[in-house]
Amino acid sequence: MRATLIYGAGDVRVEQVPDPVLKQPTGALVRVTAACICGSDLHPYHSMSPADGPARIGHEFIGVVEDTGSDVSTVQKGDLVVAPFAFSDGTCEYCREGLQTSCVHGGFWATGDVDGGQGEAVRAPLADGILVKLPVGPDSALIPSLLTLSDVFGTGYHAAVRGGVDERTTVTVIGDGAVGLLAVLSAKRLGAEQIVLMGRHKGRTDLGREFGATDVVAERGEEGVAKVRELTGGQGTHVVLEAVGHMPAYEQAYGVVRAGGTISRVGVPQCEEAPIGFGSLFGGNITLTGGPAPARAYIEELLPDILDGTVEPGKVFDRTVDLDGVPDGYRAMDAREALKALVTP
Amino acid sequence: MRATLIYGAGDVRVEQVPDPVLKQPTGALVRVTAACICGSDLHPYHSMSPADGPARIGHEFIGVVEDTGSDVSTVQKGDLVVAPFAFSDGTCEYCREGLQTSCVHGGFWATGDVDGGQGEAVRAPLADGILVKLPVGPDSALIPSLLTLSDVFGTGYHAAVRGGVDERTTVTVIGDGAVGLLAVLSAKRLGAEQIVLMGRHKGRTDLGREFGATDVVAERGEEGVAKVRELTGGQGTHVVLEAVGHMPAYEQAYGVVRAGGTISRVGVPQCEEAPIGFGSLFGGNITLTGGPAPARAYIEELLPDILDGTVEPGKVFDRTVDLDGVPDGYRAMDAREALKALVTP
Repeated sequence: MRATLIYGAGDVRVEQVPDPVLKQPTGALVRVTAACICGSDLHPYHSMSPADGPARIGHEFIGVVEDTGSDVSTVQKGDLVVAPFAFSDGTCEYCREGLQTSCVHGGFWATGDVDGGQGEAVRAPLADGILVKLPVGPDSALIPSLLTLSDVFGTGYHAAVRGGVDERTTVTVIGDGAVGLLAVLSAKRLGAEQIVLMGRHKGRTDLGREFGATDVVAERGEEGVAKVRELTGGQGTHVVLEAVGHMPAYEQAYGVVRAGGTISRVGVPQCEEAPIGFGSLFGGNITLTGGPAPARAYIEELLPDILDGTVEPGKVFDRTVDLDGVPDGYRAMDAREALKALVTP
Repeated sequence: MRATLIYGAGDVRVEQVPDPVLKQPTGALVRVTAACICGSDLHPYHSMSPADGPARIGHEFIGVVEDTGSDVSTVQKGDLVVAPFAFSDGTCEYCREGLQTSCVHGGFWATGDVDGGQGEAVRAPLADGILVKLPVGPDSALIPSLLTLSDVFGTGYHAAVRGGVDERTTVTVIGDGAVGLLAVLSAKRLGAEQIVLMGRHKGRTDLGREFGATDVVAERGEEGVAKVRELTGGQGTHVVLEAVGHMPAYEQAYGVVRAGGTISRVGVPQCEEAPIGFGSLFGGNITLTGGPAPARAYIEELLPDILDGTVEPGKVFDRTVDLDGVPDGYRAMDAREALKALVTP
């Protein structure tokens, strides 16, 4: 089959790779019908050393089950399924608590001998733990929105849930990428009345307003912090959803959070050390939370809203490419020509 | 009157200072009958530059109200009162939320023109916001326990509350100082069944066991982390209460916290930057919380347990000095000869 490989920074190729085969009785083979490129895929696209490549890539997909191992009971051949961006057994203590990203048997797509999502097919190692049957066909108009359940919607929602967003909290969202915009949608869904979106790409922040942002702050750094404080009576917001992962975003986060409030991060941190002392977090009793979203935990909760049209998270896709177009999809997202690219293998 | 001044690292003196006088109608004058030396007072005792001195010091006291301003309504001359380690107006949005350490009119003792607690008297700038009348006399045997309401008990309790300790959580407490030991007592009070105390001073950890610790780990660093994991089925504990503030304690904290768990800090951080990335907090969805305890918020809740003898937090005091003995109290605490010194001016 054909699949996407990353050879190093800026070097993504689509090549022939071995067809996936069932290895465990818990596994399933899935023919990918829709995949996409993630903002987090741009991190290796920026910085990966050629010495670490070539490596498979991609962790978001919808597909049709082609075969299942003998222990699989929740999906069968022919089912259209969505998978979260991390796999998990669905039975361990962490999975039962809804923290599937810490599953004791879990892992990430495109690592070890596990396929990446940006290809024609994948072997899903723990089918019952991860694959969720969708009640639509692969050509449904809902596919883009359903595909966001694999990562970006679940991730935005995780940020809002961990941040404790509700109808009593004011919220700042940092980052106008797909996760940031879906963090806005999630905050709105959880009842927040004031949602300040910090982002400077008008097309994206306009979508953010459509998703529920009440204010948009294009300024960054100290100027951006001052603007958010101005919008919140000088206090900052109860919750900050940080959907970027770079240090300036983190600095903005503790700049705009209200004393006693919470910064919830879902942007993968691009540095290990950061301020947490008296002047940043401690003095104001600021809580820092978040991490890799257990997207699997939120699928059943978010699915009905997509099926009945209450939310349309699929609006974050503004480009569609076939498998051959994946390298150009990376280029376009990196150049900010595209917000998020849908891949139809 | 006489009061304690710190001139620089290792240099604490008791000297004549101006008598406090009422300055605002919201204020009160309090004659101090019991005060104490805090673990956090040892930070300047270790590192304060003589260029920053001399400065008043002390932030924990019980005393008798000698005079009140015209706007004061909750206490009157002759009342025995306890004050929290930060002052606050009691009426602003933050105070009403129970986050008095972020009060818009608040501040800390021994800063600006506000007296420190280690002296014969203090001017309390916002009497109604901070002074809580005690239903005992200044010679009551309960005074040591009641004095812990000003800081160390409230601080340990804040750690446990912010950490979300309840009967379903396992807890590690890092630090066998007074705050750590009272964090143990607080975790026990909130229902935790497994409480691992990391500390290596036997006299202190024995008191920790009396307060509710189920396990004591004397090892530190990686060895200590391995020991706590061994005690918790390899997982670590749901909650870690960090009552030290130095980097090795923080490193232990993220080493022993369970995935999805919470580190609640009340030890004043002695460095601004620390690990928060994928390998420390983010990957396991670890929450970092805590800050200066709004001790005022917990006084009414904790007072009855002290009055009826359910808890005896005053056991953390193992030395008593008069005002002249304060410099020796610092020395003894710094040398770990004393856990916490009570001062009777």
